[in-house]
Amino acid sequence: MKSLQKTEELQILALNAFSGATGPMAPDVAALVERRRRSFGAASVLFYDEPLRIVRAEGATIHASDGRAYLDFYNNVPTVGHCHPKVVEAVRAQLGTFNTHSRYLFDVAHDYAEKLLATFPAELSNVVLACTGSESNDLALRLARKVSGKAGIIVTRAAYHGNTATVTEVSPSSYKTGAPPRHVRTVPPPDPALFGNDVAQGFADAVKAEIAALEADGIGFAGLLVDTIFSSDGVYADPPGFLKTAVEVTRAAGGLFIADEVQPGFGRTGEGMWGFSRHGVVPDIVTMGKPMGNGYPMAGLVTRPDILDTFCADVGYFNTFAGSPAACAAGLAVLEAIEEDGLIANAARVGRHLTARLKRLQARAPITAVRGAGLYLGVEFGTEKGPAPDIAKGLINGLRDHGILIGAAGRYGNVLKIRPPLCVTTADADVLVDALEELLA
Amino acid sequence: MKSLQKTEELQILALNAFSGATGPMAPDVAALVERRRRSFGAASVLFYDEPLRIVRAEGATIHASDGRAYLDFYNNVPTVGHCHPKVVEAVRAQLGTFNTHSRYLFDVAHDYAEKLLATFPAELSNVVLACTGSESNDLALRLARKVSGKAGIIVTRAAYHGNTATVTEVSPSSYKTGAPPRHVRTVPPPDPALFGNDVAQGFADAVKAEIAALEADGIGFAGLLVDTIFSSDGVYADPPGFLKTAVEVTRAAGGLFIADEVQPGFGRTGEGMWGFSRHGVVPDIVTMGKPMGNGYPMAGLVTRPDILDTFCADVGYFNTFAGSPAACAAGLAVLEAIEEDGLIANAARVGRHLTARLKRLQARAPITAVRGAGLYLGVEFGTEKGPAPDIAKGLINGLRDHGILIGAAGRYGNVLKIRPPLCVTTADADVLVDALEELLA
Repeated sequence: MKSLQKTEELQILALNAFSGATGPMAPDVAALVERRRRSFGAASVLFYDEPLRIVRAEGATIHASDGRAYLDFYNNVPTVGHCHPKVVEAVRAQLGTFNTHSRYLFDVAHDYAEKLLATFPAELSNVVLACTGSESNDLALRLARKVSGKAGIIVTRAAYHGNTATVTEVSPSSYKTGAPPRHVRTVPPPDPALFGNDVAQGFADAVKAEIAALEADGIGFAGLLVDTIFSSDGVYADPPGFLKTAVEVTRAAGGLFIADEVQPGFGRTGEGMWGFSRHGVVPDIVTMGKPMGNGYPMAGLVTRPDILDTFCADVGYFNTFAGSPAACAAGLAVLEAIEEDGLIANAARVGRHLTARLKRLQARAPITAVRGAGLYLGVEFGTEKGPAPDIAKGLINGLRDHGILIGAAGRYGNVLKIRPPLCVTTADADVLVDALEELLA
Repeated sequence: MKSLQKTEELQILALNAFSGATGPMAPDVAALVERRRRSFGAASVLFYDEPLRIVRAEGATIHASDGRAYLDFYNNVPTVGHCHPKVVEAVRAQLGTFNTHSRYLFDVAHDYAEKLLATFPAELSNVVLACTGSESNDLALRLARKVSGKAGIIVTRAAYHGNTATVTEVSPSSYKTGAPPRHVRTVPPPDPALFGNDVAQGFADAVKAEIAALEADGIGFAGLLVDTIFSSDGVYADPPGFLKTAVEVTRAAGGLFIADEVQPGFGRTGEGMWGFSRHGVVPDIVTMGKPMGNGYPMAGLVTRPDILDTFCADVGYFNTFAGSPAACAAGLAVLEAIEEDGLIANAARVGRHLTARLKRLQARAPITAVRGAGLYLGVEFGTEKGPAPDIAKGLINGLRDHGILIGAAGRYGNVLKIRPPLCVTTADADVLVDALEELLA
């Protein structure tokens, strides 16, 4: 249980994992931790030295067995809010009616596919549904390699794209030791601290250099795969448009641009549905995951028909649970909830408020940057000695004592990651920043 | 939409896929097919020339928009019955309470893990939850390769184990053209027609020869991965125990034995929960999928702690949707329904009845074998000219006209695959065999 994966998702765990100490735990929690150790063994990972035992959740609030209500600034899966009534009812109704695989016809699949595709540029007119973001990225890599005829993939230095054998190769943040295989090359994140004012050109030049290296090594270049808000690298969103040059470089070299929207997608940036659109680019493939069903396991990718045709001529793709009626009902309810609850505008509004307050705090705290878009923000801690993961770790634990759940990101784990359900309010944001002010004082 | 994958799951499609013809379709069905073509493109696969538009389902019955009720002899995902009230209510209740990822504690995860692990031999004391059988097999291959330090995997000739990049490599039935990569070797299925009376020794010898070939090629042997009822190869269940010799050969060569229980697992063979136990072996890794949540997307593997420890020391595993409260609630309800509804005994009883009637039919029909265990049966069609997929195809379409849904399997697609929800009755079985008799007359 002490073995931890160093991924975007698990970065916090490297800082703050279950230590095995049972001394201070409430008896009910200690008993569950022991049961967990026995059944789930080395693959089990838990948040906090004394993990939360959850009893219920709604909106942006999680209620635990310690009798406390925690404000959730960590979880992006319940993107429209924990237990959103609309999503719960849609899935409930469908599960009680029928829930088969997708080789039969059912109306909700088409209502969903059409509503989802309408949020994308017209070129991206085909959708393939899967169950997890990992499966989506696994398939995206197969598409890119088939279409390009090459194997080489470029990702960022602390990228996390999922957990299959193939996707782990392109997730350097998952490696405890060692380097990526030869057909996977990494570039630094689009960090102004590295590239100065022209992040676009600097990032594109880094991509260009790795393309050349892949060609020189006889591997060839299949595509560039990035999370369009660079979450696991530490959250890099600005200036909007900086990705365009790297995408041009990618296309000029015959590669495909794959936008991983698992993190920024479904309205989180407060500037439309997708992170890539902030950059004025149209990807060849867009992958989706976590927030897509608000917790119902579903994921997928959209792409151009010519790409899918080329792939399917050779092998095809079928996924038993994917695109089931319940998944489509969940996905449709999520899209409707984003609209009806005005969540994109809310992400923009609360994000602006948070950013402004965090920037004021920056003047009197060891904060080296406040970055992000909408409700995906990164607060980077550092001192004259460099990155300060200890400050981030201390805050994660301190905020829990204040009834706030949050995590960390970045290569050094020194970036506090603000990624709440999109229904949080400016009052919730004030609770977070008030607590940060108190803890940093 | 006409591009079809030749997999176990899709074998029927190669026989019987949507042809693109819209002439005879009901207008509502034709409209959905057209919407499907537009949104899902080349990756879309549908059953039957005029696909079923489903409106509701319960037990072993699917109701379609043509006003008919179809008896379901195809679907093993709703293993305890379509829309089983116990499973539906368990998921409904959990979705409305909370449904987070597994890095918090919640009681249902432990109730489920313990009940699941209690069905396995004591050595297999750790469980890792995933979302799909593909993810489970992908992880199992990573475990086997890490523990053995080798890459070579042996599977059967028409194996299907899932759809990730890595698992597709070990799924020869998915290839439209070409051969497996060098680190994947195939053996014939354990078919008495190939190996005579000593299937155990014949199959083990075939495995031994491929191990030697892997060693000779400098690749080395990581493990043997088989579906313990060999579904996609055409269903091979007898004699119980025949796998034991191949497992001994595998272990003697330092390889791991991975039992893929996606098809036979959860009671389908009518002889206990798992297909491997019929063979008197304890696998190193057991993978599970389809029936695990009766349609709620969930899957996983069980293994020994020493195997998981070795893997996690290097990388670890986390899967966002896996082991969520709703998944665990679904899985627990499935295990309880199997017990409460007496489904293993029912699978044995109805399977015996079906087998007896099919064997009587064999005397006066072009049936070359009736094989299987419990409610996983294969009826192989052939003439003096060899395998007869056309007969199987004709029966699949003919049975649909009789209100019965069924599919095909086997390298040649000539094996009718009987794989219904485990709640079918002997009366349902009689409806199937009566229709077969009529169609074959």
